[in-house]
Amino acid sequence: MTDTAPLAPGATIGILGGGQLGRMLAVAASRLGLKAHVYEPGANPPAAEVAHAVTTAPYEDEPALRAFAASVDVITYEFENVPTSALDILESLRPIRPGRRALAVSQDRILEKTFLNGAGLATAPWASVEFPDDLAAAVERIGAPSILKTTRMGYDGKGQARILDAAEAAAALATLEGAPAILEGFVDFSREISVIAARGLDGAVTAYDPGENVHRDGILHTTTIPARISASQRSDAVLIAAKILTQLDYVGVMGVELFVTPQGLLVNEIAPRVHNSGHWTQNGCTIDQFEQHIRAVAGWPLGDGARHTDVVMTNLIGDDVAKVPDYARDPDVAIHLYGKAQARPGRKMGHVNRVIRR
Amino acid sequence: MTDTAPLAPGATIGILGGGQLGRMLAVAASRLGLKAHVYEPGANPPAAEVAHAVTTAPYEDEPALRAFAASVDVITYEFENVPTSALDILESLRPIRPGRRALAVSQDRILEKTFLNGAGLATAPWASVEFPDDLAAAVERIGAPSILKTTRMGYDGKGQARILDAAEAAAALATLEGAPAILEGFVDFSREISVIAARGLDGAVTAYDPGENVHRDGILHTTTIPARISASQRSDAVLIAAKILTQLDYVGVMGVELFVTPQGLLVNEIAPRVHNSGHWTQNGCTIDQFEQHIRAVAGWPLGDGARHTDVVMTNLIGDDVAKVPDYARDPDVAIHLYGKAQARPGRKMGHVNRVIRR
Repeated sequence: MTDTAPLAPGATIGILGGGQLGRMLAVAASRLGLKAHVYEPGANPPAAEVAHAVTTAPYEDEPALRAFAASVDVITYEFENVPTSALDILESLRPIRPGRRALAVSQDRILEKTFLNGAGLATAPWASVEFPDDLAAAVERIGAPSILKTTRMGYDGKGQARILDAAEAAAALATLEGAPAILEGFVDFSREISVIAARGLDGAVTAYDPGENVHRDGILHTTTIPARISASQRSDAVLIAAKILTQLDYVGVMGVELFVTPQGLLVNEIAPRVHNSGHWTQNGCTIDQFEQHIRAVAGWPLGDGARHTDVVMTNLIGDDVAKVPDYARDPDVAIHLYGKAQARPGRKMGHVNRVIRR
Repeated sequence: MTDTAPLAPGATIGILGGGQLGRMLAVAASRLGLKAHVYEPGANPPAAEVAHAVTTAPYEDEPALRAFAASVDVITYEFENVPTSALDILESLRPIRPGRRALAVSQDRILEKTFLNGAGLATAPWASVEFPDDLAAAVERIGAPSILKTTRMGYDGKGQARILDAAEAAAALATLEGAPAILEGFVDFSREISVIAARGLDGAVTAYDPGENVHRDGILHTTTIPARISASQRSDAVLIAAKILTQLDYVGVMGVELFVTPQGLLVNEIAPRVHNSGHWTQNGCTIDQFEQHIRAVAGWPLGDGARHTDVVMTNLIGDDVAKVPDYARDPDVAIHLYGKAQARPGRKMGHVNRVIRR
């Protein structure tokens, strides 16, 4: 279904997924007078506390999906691995924004790389290892060091195995337990940056300034705004993001991760949703990435990406949440917690934005 | 009950009143990982959409009040006219912040003026008209023009009658339908400003810069930051607010309205809660008045009042909400809607913050 009229206040945004991204999207919707209805299989999801309505049901529950669709005006999602069967049902009933093409591309690393290279954008060298028999040829082409990744459902460093020497390739593949994979060459990059960009229903594109990302244990640790890159790298990064959004006829916010290399910018991966590396916008911009996404999927005009304050965002992972009392005493720190009861290792419990006073 | 340990994430803030102030307080609580339980007699209150839990019951329902208190860790409120009988029950079960003294003083204009003058703070000249027989003496002392106000339950210009000539006094009093009243002399003021100040459980006081208020039809229309006042007026205003909070042993955010006159600053009135004239802090400060209030009542350290951006806040009253599509196209405007379905005349539907780029 398509519908291009902007949603009026009082309309309902359906959000697939009830994690912290859904939680912050629901708050942004409320700010614009829109209701949020969250669909989430798990009990007590973080988004439930601030949502107008919650459906607790698996993605295989067709009656629940149909009732959910009937109660909302447009559907969006906080994660890219929504099962295709659920999307098929929902798509027949309500607009899904961002659309299916962006989801398909971002759900599969091989489709993603193929799309990006086809759009003339550089990526790491890669080879398909859809079947185990593909491995030898892939290793011969890409060499080592390299990294094997499952083509689907990977995030935060899961479903990945490094290959430092070609002789390790078979053992690395075995850790992926038979899943179709992609072999990516190591990239000699000086930094990883990301662009949080948005495209409206009218085709207008806007982007926040690129942030510089530092990971720990495969999970985003900090994003610093502005990234330490040149003005031309900054405009290149934004133009790359705009090209991706436009070619996908995208509606919503996208996170585009880029490697800064001596040969230019390479696209690492794209996420068709609000993105952890965009959380700094909550304390750096008048319109943050969550409201920007809601504005886009609701057919509203986008805010611009202007920044009033530089920011360093730090994720609170697992026991990091114990530092909250210290952060609360720091006048330059804004705290954002997700309402999760248990601080398990590797679990994202919240984040803090340190504002840099001018 | 008193308890001075800061609330841990996961604790619950009880909020009496489910209007827009309760709604924005609930969102601020969620940001700090705290739950919000709203108590509100009316159906479908604005705060319900973003609250963890809602109790729908009158303030006379003792079992409901007791169950509410049992489910929360601390109680606050979004309006000062909470019935005393409800407070008596709640106070025996959980800490109420801000405390009873601030409520008592702000619920009654005569107690308020008496407290303020007793603290050495200047107000408009006033006289009690508790009984109709007091009117003649009051008019003789205060003269005209002057304004008769009910001592209790007045807000947004309701329960008020102007007296331009002493001969009109009896007719003005009749419009108040026998309610105890106060006669206040007209003040020749150049501007009205307000200070949004906060005091923590530890006694620390902080304040945002004063804003300048313009009313229309007795309802706040705009607040502009910074107010056009001198540096000494600015510090005087903040010191007056600090004196009020400290003398009341106050915990939370307070709105202090002041008249700027040739004879100095006069206190107009105080509101023991987050205040409409503090809504600009949402887009001007890292920690806004709503989070500041939640931090205070939760026993957390306060944020400072530093401002990163100048702001003009404009209320959307009644049909003003029809201007939202235009505001949405303005990159310097942040929209805040309250989720109210019907735009009745005089009803606060939302507000917009126009940021002033430097």
